[in-house]
Amino acid sequence: MVKYPHNLIRKQVNPPSQAKPINFANRGMSFESAINSTNEYYLSKRIAVVHKKPTPVQIVRVDYPKRSRAKIVEAYFRQASTTDYSGVYKGHYLDFEAKETRQKTAMPMKNFHAHQIEHMEHVLEQKGICFVLLHFSTLKETYFLPASALVSYYQIDQGTKSMPLDYIKKNGFAVENNSLPQVPYLDIIDKFFLGGD
Amino acid sequence: MVKYPHNLIRKQVNPPSQAKPINFANRGMSFESAINSTNEYYLSKRIAVVHKKPTPVQIVRVDYPKRSRAKIVEAYFRQASTTDYSGVYKGHYLDFEAKETRQKTAMPMKNFHAHQIEHMEHVLEQKGICFVLLHFSTLKETYFLPASALVSYYQIDQGTKSMPLDYIKKNGFAVENNSLPQVPYLDIIDKFFLGGD
Repeated sequence: MVKYPHNLIRKQVNPPSQAKPINFANRGMSFESAINSTNEYYLSKRIAVVHKKPTPVQIVRVDYPKRSRAKIVEAYFRQASTTDYSGVYKGHYLDFEAKETRQKTAMPMKNFHAHQIEHMEHVLEQKGICFVLLHFSTLKETYFLPASALVSYYQIDQGTKSMPLDYIKKNGFAVENNSLPQVPYLDIIDKFFLGGD
Repeated sequence: MVKYPHNLIRKQVNPPSQAKPINFANRGMSFESAINSTNEYYLSKRIAVVHKKPTPVQIVRVDYPKRSRAKIVEAYFRQASTTDYSGVYKGHYLDFEAKETRQKTAMPMKNFHAHQIEHMEHVLEQKGICFVLLHFSTLKETYFLPASALVSYYQIDQGTKSMPLDYIKKNGFAVENNSLPQVPYLDIIDKFFLGGD
């Protein structure tokens, strides 16, 4: 049912640095790592509390060896029914997913599952701040797309094709690839969602 | 490092019903199941979006059998660094942990880890609504204790002893054991946190 997530097992290896300093792609970091370190930065500076949810796993069998800790010996990946990241910023609920592509003109919609889209709709109904961070690794560009724009596109597309970069640019916001924090998505939230909150 | 969570593997089996209708303990349900079905109820009625986070697991080895899905063959339980539940209610960030005890006069503080307490402090700083739901299964009583009261107690207690039921009653709120939703914690939030929001 669920394809195994390669990225959990094999760390993404990027080509060696080409001496462009402020770009995590050149430092052998995956986009996910850049988000995680952004969240760590926000947490350490007491700016926001955002965590990645653990990978959902269905545990079938566990061994309990003597004098050592429990070992899971049979388990399977489950498909996530929500997004990967959630947290709190100035009392507001944040909820987002991060996706990366090597394509230059579009984000493949197979990156988003029906359950995740539905979850985003529920979050929007509850007035949560919900969005996706889309990284185009070849272009070295990152976009913040509000979930409302993703949901609208998904309803037309039904998860089969691609979301053009033009659509993303028109409905989203470019996120600077920064040094620290690396993916400063809260700047977008401050500017376009909270308006000087 | 981490003791294995028994409850993941063995379902809690309660004694047969004693014909008290509105009490999940008598229906063979654990407190956790009652919370989960409460969250399902809130979600289905479009009242709030609250999910339990997946159990954190450190994946060490995965087999990829031909023609079948990936099988995790070595993994270990990791200690949760955050709380179990988070979500959004009317734009507000909710964050909580649920704990059950058979004791009649106190909740053992070993139920709360330093990392979780720290996480609650961070959430409170960001103005999230953070709390614990404490179920005394022998007494069939459930309490909503604001995280601020738990953190205060933890700072005195340092996680070694027990938090008296008297302290919980004084600083928290009784939650009705309801039929549907079974643990109506949002009633407390409406009444004491949002004040007719």
